[in-house]
Amino acid sequence: MASGKSQKGPVVGVDLGGTNMQIGVVTQDRALVGESKRKTKADEGFDAILTRLVSGIEEACAAAKISLRDLSAVGIGAPGAVDPRSGVVVEAVNLRWNDVALSDILSKRLGIPVFLDNDVNVAVYGEYRMGAGAGSKYMLGVWVGTGIGGGLILNDQLYYGHFLTAGEIGHTIAMPGNQPGNRSLEHNCSRTAVVDRLVRLIKSNRKSILTKLTDGDLDAIKSKTIAEAYKRKDDLTVEVIEEAAALIGISIANCVTLLSLERVVLGGGLTEALGDPWVDLIKKQVRKIAFPDLCKKVDVVGSKLMDHAGVYGAAMIAMDRLAAK
Amino acid sequence: MASGKSQKGPVVGVDLGGTNMQIGVVTQDRALVGESKRKTKADEGFDAILTRLVSGIEEACAAAKISLRDLSAVGIGAPGAVDPRSGVVVEAVNLRWNDVALSDILSKRLGIPVFLDNDVNVAVYGEYRMGAGAGSKYMLGVWVGTGIGGGLILNDQLYYGHFLTAGEIGHTIAMPGNQPGNRSLEHNCSRTAVVDRLVRLIKSNRKSILTKLTDGDLDAIKSKTIAEAYKRKDDLTVEVIEEAAALIGISIANCVTLLSLERVVLGGGLTEALGDPWVDLIKKQVRKIAFPDLCKKVDVVGSKLMDHAGVYGAAMIAMDRLAAK
Repeated sequence: MASGKSQKGPVVGVDLGGTNMQIGVVTQDRALVGESKRKTKADEGFDAILTRLVSGIEEACAAAKISLRDLSAVGIGAPGAVDPRSGVVVEAVNLRWNDVALSDILSKRLGIPVFLDNDVNVAVYGEYRMGAGAGSKYMLGVWVGTGIGGGLILNDQLYYGHFLTAGEIGHTIAMPGNQPGNRSLEHNCSRTAVVDRLVRLIKSNRKSILTKLTDGDLDAIKSKTIAEAYKRKDDLTVEVIEEAAALIGISIANCVTLLSLERVVLGGGLTEALGDPWVDLIKKQVRKIAFPDLCKKVDVVGSKLMDHAGVYGAAMIAMDRLAAK
Repeated sequence: MASGKSQKGPVVGVDLGGTNMQIGVVTQDRALVGESKRKTKADEGFDAILTRLVSGIEEACAAAKISLRDLSAVGIGAPGAVDPRSGVVVEAVNLRWNDVALSDILSKRLGIPVFLDNDVNVAVYGEYRMGAGAGSKYMLGVWVGTGIGGGLILNDQLYYGHFLTAGEIGHTIAMPGNQPGNRSLEHNCSRTAVVDRLVRLIKSNRKSILTKLTDGDLDAIKSKTIAEAYKRKDDLTVEVIEEAAALIGISIANCVTLLSLERVVLGGGLTEALGDPWVDLIKKQVRKIAFPDLCKKVDVVGSKLMDHAGVYGAAMIAMDRLAAK
């Protein structure tokens, strides 16, 4: 086809996680026209993952009623340490990969350019280009789920820093008085940390509706369970969630003070489950603390693209990098 | 003169503080060839300050054996909120100025371009261009004195952020468990805070050589006194200094983790007085904490330009902005 491999064709965005890969075909006017999903099955090794990835891309193309040859590029968000310039996955513990030249390998297989970035950066870029970050030039994205990830848009560009590792707000020290190993924001405020605290407090005889909501199986507490208990104004849940939001708010306020940010976008499983009340708690705290007063004007908003931020972001990265080539 | 007002002439750098103004003539090959100093006397008002500033520039030119007409530009670092694009001092409490169009006014008076920036940014820029930051592309400068100031070089440029207020590491929350008003890094680790803690502990009967070093007048504790007591291994001083360095190290490590920085330059009165042992304490802490491991390679070094960072930095800003015009 004449339009094949031109910069005008649709692109594919891939959100490559340790458990699932999510794939979407996005047109130049930013419409998601075809999707597919696959289990990653990291234990089966690189070749098997690559094969599943390619068949996933084919399925998404079929859903979009286009052929592989109509695509102009692929963008991928991969977990762990990634070099966006060389397209190499330096280390991805979830995928059991070290120094995998994913861009080159997939590009040869498909015959089109493949662009790679870190999964959190990709989601942040998605929100910045098409979601809750649109229109802002200085933005921080914070994803609160199993862990806490972050990414920065500074001066209208993804910011990488000297070692290409920037954005790791989850690994900043939030509780300097705690023991080493229990001081980071992630250790104190991820969904994992919140669940641990809830379970510990319930086991020490604090009453909570969570016991009923999980039929006594506290291991079954998920983001949605927490959200349900919070909505029902369960004292313990409200207390733990407010504590976590207050601490996340301090860490984000510190970023705003340091970087004079215009907008903060909150995402991730816990944020999606808790919704506006969670975003409002954090926003209030950030605006109370940010320095100087000018910075209290910072916007703090919830993700718009939700669990599609990765696919859209990867697609946008493919489009923008192809155009910049 | 033919060379007058060309981009090839020397420039003047001004470090305009609330107490003193320090002025230097710097040649294109970065030699400081003439200096002068004046009291600022902020209480005498804008016109008097401006007159003293102009006479100070004339004196520095005379010392450099050039005339005002040989200068190609002036750079100024001013305290407080400054708009580097418009050259307006938005608010400088120390100078009692609000919305003073300093660049325009001085430029008209001297007939050459005048460039303005915040005093901390200017000192950070000086270290980046000619001092301990030279060769680094991603750098944080932290000035520990009466307060704690900071500035950022990201991607080889001074970083301002959306509200033009970036760099305020001193106003980030370092002790989230403390009462509001006593939680910031500056509140806990500036020279002022260190002296307050020393005095409080001595008054609560902790023994210290500081009592002898100040002849019992604890109000006379300066950075140099602290440095002397630290050098003599005074238990109390060592304890308080190590605590302050540990907390500053955490805050800096958080910046390194967030921004993936290559280098950190430490300056300010307390740093200059304590010297290498202080820098080493902070460096150790930063490298222990920064995430991921790659970031532990960050350089942490002391200022090279010391109390001339402002003059050199203002001169470099004048030169670089003139060249970019």
